Amino acid sequence: MMQPRVGDPVAAVPTPALVIDLDAMERNLARMAAFAREHRLKLRPHAKMHKSARIAALQVAAGAVGVCVQKLSEAEALAAGGVADIYISNEIVDAAKLARVAALAGRIRLAIAVDSSLGIDRLALALKAAGTSLDVFVEIDVGQGRCGVAPTAAGALAHQVVSHGLRFAGLQAYHGKAQHLRSADERAAAIRHAVALVRAAQASITGAGIACPLVTGAGSGSFAFEAASGVYGELQAGSYLFMDRDYADNQPAPGAPVFEHALFVKSQVVSRGASHAVVDAGHKSHAIDSGLPRTWQRDLVFANGGDEHGILHPGRDALPELGDTVWLVPGHCDPTVNLHDRYVAVRGGLAGGVVEGVWPVDARGCLV
Amino acid sequence: MMQPRVGDPVAAVPTPALVIDLDAMERNLARMAAFAREHRLKLRPHAKMHKSARIAALQVAAGAVGVCVQKLSEAEALAAGGVADIYISNEIVDAAKLARVAALAGRIRLAIAVDSSLGIDRLALALKAAGTSLDVFVEIDVGQGRCGVAPTAAGALAHQVVSHGLRFAGLQAYHGKAQHLRSADERAAAIRHAVALVRAAQASITGAGIACPLVTGAGSGSFAFEAASGVYGELQAGSYLFMDRDYADNQPAPGAPVFEHALFVKSQVVSRGASHAVVDAGHKSHAIDSGLPRTWQRDLVFANGGDEHGILHPGRDALPELGDTVWLVPGHCDPTVNLHDRYVAVRGGLAGGVVEGVWPVDARGCLV
Repeated sequence: MMQPRVGDPVAAVPTPALVIDLDAMERNLARMAAFAREHRLKLRPHAKMHKSARIAALQVAAGAVGVCVQKLSEAEALAAGGVADIYISNEIVDAAKLARVAALAGRIRLAIAVDSSLGIDRLALALKAAGTSLDVFVEIDVGQGRCGVAPTAAGALAHQVVSHGLRFAGLQAYHGKAQHLRSADERAAAIRHAVALVRAAQASITGAGIACPLVTGAGSGSFAFEAASGVYGELQAGSYLFMDRDYADNQPAPGAPVFEHALFVKSQVVSRGASHAVVDAGHKSHAIDSGLPRTWQRDLVFANGGDEHGILHPGRDALPELGDTVWLVPGHCDPTVNLHDRYVAVRGGLAGGVVEGVWPVDARGCLV
Repeated sequence: MMQPRVGDPVAAVPTPALVIDLDAMERNLARMAAFAREHRLKLRPHAKMHKSARIAALQVAAGAVGVCVQKLSEAEALAAGGVADIYISNEIVDAAKLARVAALAGRIRLAIAVDSSLGIDRLALALKAAGTSLDVFVEIDVGQGRCGVAPTAAGALAHQVVSHGLRFAGLQAYHGKAQHLRSADERAAAIRHAVALVRAAQASITGAGIACPLVTGAGSGSFAFEAASGVYGELQAGSYLFMDRDYADNQPAPGAPVFEHALFVKSQVVSRGASHAVVDAGHKSHAIDSGLPRTWQRDLVFANGGDEHGILHPGRDALPELGDTVWLVPGHCDPTVNLHDRYVAVRGGLAGGVVEGVWPVDARGCLV
């Protein structure tokens, strides 16, 4: 199959393609690194978003302490690509998977989240069998309503962790539901609530006679509030690097850097009716869990055309013609990236730029 | 990374995994093949759904004339896997891609859809340069509102096709919007309308002095109506093989065979609260464009938990426990398959079965 090559003009990249505007991405990278530095916080970007060892290396070079992932196989893929410090910010309870976790802990600096007694017992057993160690974070539910225990239960789990001789590293306290509350005030209120729960969990842990070294969490919609809280020591934001349509629809938080769209799907008009145009990018090219993509630099109305098509109606701009390129800003970058095998990294802008790199999405499809 | 192996019990397959119940799939395969045979219709299942050369071969062995795809790179991937007769039921207007189409036409029996004068000119140029030939279908819009020309414009395009010395093969007339109208009566009415438009297009073509050899179209929701129409000669249904939740929610059409769920996502409970359980399968494991998955053999309420999680609330059945397996029936099989690198093909049922094969999703991510 014909792939884009380094040095090709953007115009020659076959559609649909997942394109990074490198200039915009590097500005986003630097802005978040500066923010974390200024606030004396660790930055551990979520690599579930980009799934790329190369991009993780860029983040670490800019000051990140490492990356987060959600899945064991993501950690394995990124470790194989040279990432040396990974936190699986999610629960694993399967014994066979935990044996792989323990094996990986022998190769890189690794951390994992737990939220159950069974999970801790099995993790301890796997680590003992492998003779390896890792950092263990206890996850508390700070408003997401998904994984994590109640703050008052954190002390008992931390106690169980240290009883097994494992390293208790602190609290996992991510509030996913706060990220896309549109007004900055709503997000501030949600994180105030999360911070109160973190403090309760810290009290539960110190009450059990255990120190709580670190609280980790925060996303691209809320990190300015966690940063200002005084309790969070590490930020896990990931999407800031690419900035999808859904995050851009948020009212910016006061004091937070502004990020630019850096990830696009290049599409082409393959059919043109009198009142609509059809591009060759559907929801096999861009995820629609957080809504449809937005057209970029053309004001058009994008309608879902199914797996392989997008349907465009006129906005303030007129419809494009047959064969025209249409750039899309995905609604949600994480699952969009996961649809593609490679990034086409472009230098010099989308209009007249040149392909500087073709980068594999190393952990694409790493579900286990 | 540890992969499932042939001979493993289902219980040992790491989650999340895309699992085929082979017994159910084979019954579905035989039922549709018998239906097409009894109605003396060609069956050309849509391989955009399964993206597997191996499954395409099973369909051809059961009587299919070949398969459809939507994308050039899907055709290339399946041809590389030995599929010898492929119809790209979609428009391509990019000259570089059409050169690849023309090259592929030299290796397998190939067909393509057109709906524009520009597209036909460029296709003819590419075929001339390569010295190859293929079948050309003119697409008409029969109610989908996406690609395809008005029926009255079909004659002029067919004329242009034959003027270039290309083989005009007939009409592409697929009504996507009809497929999930819930009542059989609504779907019957939609296809009656499509059939009227097909007849108008046929009149336009014969009026231009050209024979219309074949009308191809139909999906898993409507094929019984196209089959009964007397104008359609070929059925393109694809999802019948796996039968997703969205198709199962349709009222069955009179006279249509009944298909069983044959595709599942195996998931595991990784976190358990007092009132909910969390499985390790989110919308990176199953597409949600057509709604959420349904739990299988357990009556539970599935809520979206984001990219990597599903949240279960009690239904008529009680919540599963930490570590339990939960089987999910995807809302939409096509984009779900496209999220996975491989099928785990199981013989003997989901409960006590054994892995009979691990099959690559050959055309996964083939977007171009």
